[in-house]
Amino acid sequence: MSFQFDLEATSGQARAATFSTPHGPIRTPCFMPVGTHGALKAMTPAQVAETGAQVVLANTYHLAQKPGEGLVEKLGGLHAFMQWPGPILTDSGGFQVFSLPGVEIADKGVRFKNEHTGDIMDMTPESSIEIQNRLGADIIMAFDECTPYPASRKLAATGVRRTLAWMERCMKAHGRPDDQALFAIVQGSVYPELRAQCAEGLAALDCPGYAIGGVSVGEGHELLCQVTESTAPLLPAQKPRYLMGVGLPEDLIACVGYGVDLFDCVIPTRYARSATVFTSRGRLRLTHRRYRRDAYPIDVSCDCYACKDGAFSRAYLHHLFAANEVLSAILCSIHNVHFYESLMAQARQAILEDRYADFAGEFAEAYGQAETAQSSAPTR
Amino acid sequence: MSFQFDLEATSGQARAATFSTPHGPIRTPCFMPVGTHGALKAMTPAQVAETGAQVVLANTYHLAQKPGEGLVEKLGGLHAFMQWPGPILTDSGGFQVFSLPGVEIADKGVRFKNEHTGDIMDMTPESSIEIQNRLGADIIMAFDECTPYPASRKLAATGVRRTLAWMERCMKAHGRPDDQALFAIVQGSVYPELRAQCAEGLAALDCPGYAIGGVSVGEGHELLCQVTESTAPLLPAQKPRYLMGVGLPEDLIACVGYGVDLFDCVIPTRYARSATVFTSRGRLRLTHRRYRRDAYPIDVSCDCYACKDGAFSRAYLHHLFAANEVLSAILCSIHNVHFYESLMAQARQAILEDRYADFAGEFAEAYGQAETAQSSAPTR
Repeated sequence: MSFQFDLEATSGQARAATFSTPHGPIRTPCFMPVGTHGALKAMTPAQVAETGAQVVLANTYHLAQKPGEGLVEKLGGLHAFMQWPGPILTDSGGFQVFSLPGVEIADKGVRFKNEHTGDIMDMTPESSIEIQNRLGADIIMAFDECTPYPASRKLAATGVRRTLAWMERCMKAHGRPDDQALFAIVQGSVYPELRAQCAEGLAALDCPGYAIGGVSVGEGHELLCQVTESTAPLLPAQKPRYLMGVGLPEDLIACVGYGVDLFDCVIPTRYARSATVFTSRGRLRLTHRRYRRDAYPIDVSCDCYACKDGAFSRAYLHHLFAANEVLSAILCSIHNVHFYESLMAQARQAILEDRYADFAGEFAEAYGQAETAQSSAPTR
Repeated sequence: MSFQFDLEATSGQARAATFSTPHGPIRTPCFMPVGTHGALKAMTPAQVAETGAQVVLANTYHLAQKPGEGLVEKLGGLHAFMQWPGPILTDSGGFQVFSLPGVEIADKGVRFKNEHTGDIMDMTPESSIEIQNRLGADIIMAFDECTPYPASRKLAATGVRRTLAWMERCMKAHGRPDDQALFAIVQGSVYPELRAQCAEGLAALDCPGYAIGGVSVGEGHELLCQVTESTAPLLPAQKPRYLMGVGLPEDLIACVGYGVDLFDCVIPTRYARSATVFTSRGRLRLTHRRYRRDAYPIDVSCDCYACKDGAFSRAYLHHLFAANEVLSAILCSIHNVHFYESLMAQARQAILEDRYADFAGEFAEAYGQAETAQSSAPTR
């Protein structure tokens, strides 16, 4: 059996587990950094691995457009193509397609216009899974209908109906169940009974993993927490749980507490490029003039390449941003991804020692002390 | 004595030596990659060191503008600021100032308009050296008059006269001769008797090193070779010789053969960003469609991070350029700088074994075999 989920400890609802994949184990809770085009922005795979990242995400929609799943397959699949030896997860492509202008959604699938060629194209549960089979990630995602926010109950109910029907089609189309785990996705917007109906229907299909989708679409921290808190316990306890597109450090800490195992988000790398870095005492915006002469590293308690032994000063990073040097993005991306991975490693340790609530409280207290940088970067 | 130049072997005019500096030895012949703003473009210092680079260059003009030499000094000098523990060289800032629109050159110095503030500013031999003293590089450069190309004999003669007079002022102004080696620069354009006059005048000053300047300004490979071949032998044999702003691999191989020890150039990093990479069989332009499906690494015989064990395919790099992923620049910069460093290491070995002419011939034969990519990137 290529995939196995071993629950090692719980602390309240929080869980520590190991999810085995054909490209190695994933210790949870775990944050997966995003490499949209098959590359993390501004980092080599070696630098990504050094942050402690265990698994990376790549986007099916973007890779299908360029360079095409056929070429990736010919070159040995995503692992060889992007030189990431560990586990990889691909999304279904649906999230990107649903946000295209003029997209048409029907029970059969989705029709949209190719951004590059202008061609009319269709994406269906079958075609999404076929593309993901050819890309070759360890974890692949169901083609679901991602309900926007806000959405009427009617729209959300249609999304749940389609998501359930499409999941069965995805499973039927899946050609590599032995070496690719197909995760189901729970939709239902902010309506608890729809979430419950979707979770129940999907749980009956005995999938190797379950995701909570339709979040991080503008609903905010409070609603995100409500949806996650009520949905996570409805998912099978013996399967990994993945909260899609989430989020800020405070979101992760809250949602680990609700029983989520896996997260992905562009925030650490995207914020890094716009000079916002995370520290144990909150966020800093390095382009602020207060850092122009600051001899300290980003975080004195951090041991990433950018911080360890007090290496690169905030003043140097401030200068690199002012000079438009790409090394600014490189160093801040390394730091931010390391921060997320280190946060999840600490959360895991706290769960193993059954003191997760204390850990979450200590994190919140320390994290609230710094400058709260006003960042305009979107969360997804 | 902080600086010492030990000539270890010669092969024809080519030299292998070790130049000792306060931040470690430099084995020559040696190529110095350029970190204009105190950072190599798209590479961390750790990645730069991994290429085999021993010494890096930073630009006084740019650093004086941003963040200012005072701040760099306050933060511990350039080595601490940019986290480069090895030797560093700064130029005088003259090359950049002379190319500004509306610059006024007089015997006293140069008057120009600050690009950022619009303020009228002066740069003199004294102010250039003071800035370089505060930046704190191991090797600092004389403030010379860099003659453009083409130039009349009269203009070139004025340049030589000023360069000689300014060198004496630079030496007088130099406040840290024990831990910063001030190199003189030979001007004289393409006129052998002016080059000879300048070299003779500077040689009498017994400087710790000598540079050939006023090259790589559009004169082309042939004239560059003529100037270097006739000028290098006029420089003191017991001092390092540095050919400024040069060049392409074929330029380096030719000029090592004329007795040059040190080179610097933006070509490897600049070409990398525009997808041109160097191999033992010539240049490749990775954006060309012929590489779209090419499973080979840039150079099968290369052991840089991008190539070793056949790691990243040309097809993947082609994709990264198409997707505007900065990882393309990172990987190609690592490869190109490694190529230059490896070429110089091979040249050194050939000199130590007294077979430099054979090595140069073998290089030229192999290097001429590949696609000759048409690159529009300027050489400086």
